[in-house]
Amino acid sequence: MPDAVNAFVPGPDVRIEGAAEGPLAGLSFAAKDLFDVAGFPTGGGNPGWAKQNPVPEAHAWAVRTLLDAGARLIGKTITDEVSLGILGENPFYGTPLNSAAPDRVPGGSSSGSAAAVAAGLCDTAIGSDTGGSVRVPASFCGLYGIRPTHGRLDLTGMLPQAPAADTTGWFTRDAATFARVSEVMLAEAVPADPPKRLIVAVDGFAFAEPDTREALRPLVERLAALIGDTREEVMAPQGLSVWGRAQRTLQTAEAWRTFKPWLERDNPALAFNVARGLINGSQVPEVDRQWAALMRREARGRLEYLLPPGSILCLPTTPFPAPIKALPLDQQNPVRERILCLCAHGGLAGLPQLNLPGATVDGLPVGLSILAGRGADMALVATALALEGG
Amino acid sequence: MPDAVNAFVPGPDVRIEGAAEGPLAGLSFAAKDLFDVAGFPTGGGNPGWAKQNPVPEAHAWAVRTLLDAGARLIGKTITDEVSLGILGENPFYGTPLNSAAPDRVPGGSSSGSAAAVAAGLCDTAIGSDTGGSVRVPASFCGLYGIRPTHGRLDLTGMLPQAPAADTTGWFTRDAATFARVSEVMLAEAVPADPPKRLIVAVDGFAFAEPDTREALRPLVERLAALIGDTREEVMAPQGLSVWGRAQRTLQTAEAWRTFKPWLERDNPALAFNVARGLINGSQVPEVDRQWAALMRREARGRLEYLLPPGSILCLPTTPFPAPIKALPLDQQNPVRERILCLCAHGGLAGLPQLNLPGATVDGLPVGLSILAGRGADMALVATALALEGG
Repeated sequence: MPDAVNAFVPGPDVRIEGAAEGPLAGLSFAAKDLFDVAGFPTGGGNPGWAKQNPVPEAHAWAVRTLLDAGARLIGKTITDEVSLGILGENPFYGTPLNSAAPDRVPGGSSSGSAAAVAAGLCDTAIGSDTGGSVRVPASFCGLYGIRPTHGRLDLTGMLPQAPAADTTGWFTRDAATFARVSEVMLAEAVPADPPKRLIVAVDGFAFAEPDTREALRPLVERLAALIGDTREEVMAPQGLSVWGRAQRTLQTAEAWRTFKPWLERDNPALAFNVARGLINGSQVPEVDRQWAALMRREARGRLEYLLPPGSILCLPTTPFPAPIKALPLDQQNPVRERILCLCAHGGLAGLPQLNLPGATVDGLPVGLSILAGRGADMALVATALALEGG
Repeated sequence: MPDAVNAFVPGPDVRIEGAAEGPLAGLSFAAKDLFDVAGFPTGGGNPGWAKQNPVPEAHAWAVRTLLDAGARLIGKTITDEVSLGILGENPFYGTPLNSAAPDRVPGGSSSGSAAAVAAGLCDTAIGSDTGGSVRVPASFCGLYGIRPTHGRLDLTGMLPQAPAADTTGWFTRDAATFARVSEVMLAEAVPADPPKRLIVAVDGFAFAEPDTREALRPLVERLAALIGDTREEVMAPQGLSVWGRAQRTLQTAEAWRTFKPWLERDNPALAFNVARGLINGSQVPEVDRQWAALMRREARGRLEYLLPPGSILCLPTTPFPAPIKALPLDQQNPVRERILCLCAHGGLAGLPQLNLPGATVDGLPVGLSILAGRGADMALVATALALEGG
């Protein structure tokens, strides 16, 4: 089964028992191969990265936190190269299985973590989300997945991509386990009451394919029934594609700064499209970067305005379910760009976002996302629990 | 020994007996892994290429010509990825040994062919030369090597890079074997008399490091003594760096057109600097390409003027001996650019050029090149024979 799923990186087994007691005792977890596990190389999804960087001597904060809470580490999972990818196809390690849609990509870059959880190989798994790398595989594989408030968690020991947008997230198959893990990772109890106001982001739904929009309708209706006060709003008045452009500009320019020393020192082999993305980042004019930083301020302001305490907002996590595997590159790029547009608010505004599974299009999972204001991550978890319970 | 040299591509042995009789009977040869050998994948120096292209059903013209002449094929040799490289370091298959300078690169992209001949594993080996890929490893490994007149040989079955400049060349350790192989490949006997006029390209010598210039002086003096009428001339009045810029512009733009369908269909993994070179080619403005094509005309005109029948020109093949292995990328690029400048006339003018070994700097080989007019390839071979005999 593990071989068929192809969730884990090749090499020695990475298994570590958790603390004897703790709130996560009895749970197993996997860690995306961007997270340091003491004594094992951090592979980063690229054979050159592990060879060209020292073996870590300490666990990443997220790994240590889960172990200390009693969860048991069962392996390190495949990631898109240095987290640069949204489909989950790695030319060196292959494509982890999307158990819910075996002829489709799992989504990335936290592809192996999502695949491992979806296949039942572990109870939870950690990933990273800079431009959608937890949210997208959660949508494509039919999982709960969170991108927490940017800056809330300690990212020590997680391979960075674009620190202004990097976050650590996690996946589970059910809301109850999701709540247990979230309480530990966010060090906060699930609040008793769900939010009081729901905003439906009409531009987000308009951006999705009609069948995805239709498939998500029952979930939106259950959410509206749970919360009550519901209204429609445009999330991004400047345009999702404008927010997408700003986020791509900031993220690629920052990723280039992150990886330039490695690339220019070690000249690693990379998939052509990954290399092209990095080079695009090296060519961002400073005036474009400055404009994008201003648009980031506008996006932050807009979402602060829309999401006062007690509010959440919903939109499709992805504009469609998982695409088929191994699309030709010229067909991949438009698909990737559409996915990233619908995720751009995450990197721009840094607000917490949780993917709710449960909808399908022709049997393929597709997720509904809920967003809350800065720091209100646990309001999203409470909503997920209430919705699954209800 | 073969393992230590790392000249050959991994995989099944590629061994084919030559015709029972022929002018090359008794000789062994190797073929750069850009040349088709029927029934074996053509690897092109990149693991993706072989997987993503059909196994050839016929031998490349050059392979068939040598086999028909009685030479025995003993293997396929490592090349820089799809011939894009001048140092000979392949991230997937490693760096073939430069037997004459074991801590140095062998030069590329015909790295394995040069390494196999230099180590005595075969008598001759074929390579390709677009921007210097035979001339540079010949200089660095201390071998005879030729870039024939562009368009003279049939390139069927050789993986193309930039067809306006692609050629098939070969290496040997001694002039007599070089003449035997050349007579077969060029289908022309060695002429009785060496050329009558020698031009010393003063700009080429000025472009080389002082110790390389000094090391080549005895070879130039022997050449002058052999030929008689000797004079100094500037080869590239517009500047070697201007010729280099024109050749780089034309070659990278054309290489992008060659490889774009593969890159965009199969998204292969490539070394970062190889991907960057291809992307640079995709970004060449049409006005720059047009300017470069005009400069190519000027270069052709200049060399036609300098090299009427009976004339040859000499210059250092490379500005220095082989650099040390695994230079950081930011130090590689200036080295690569200097090497390519001194080779640019080959792609621009398409004239035949032969590397004469015999000089060393601190024990490291460095070659002297002789050029002749279009089609006068065998005049160069005759000169090499006369010089070695004398």
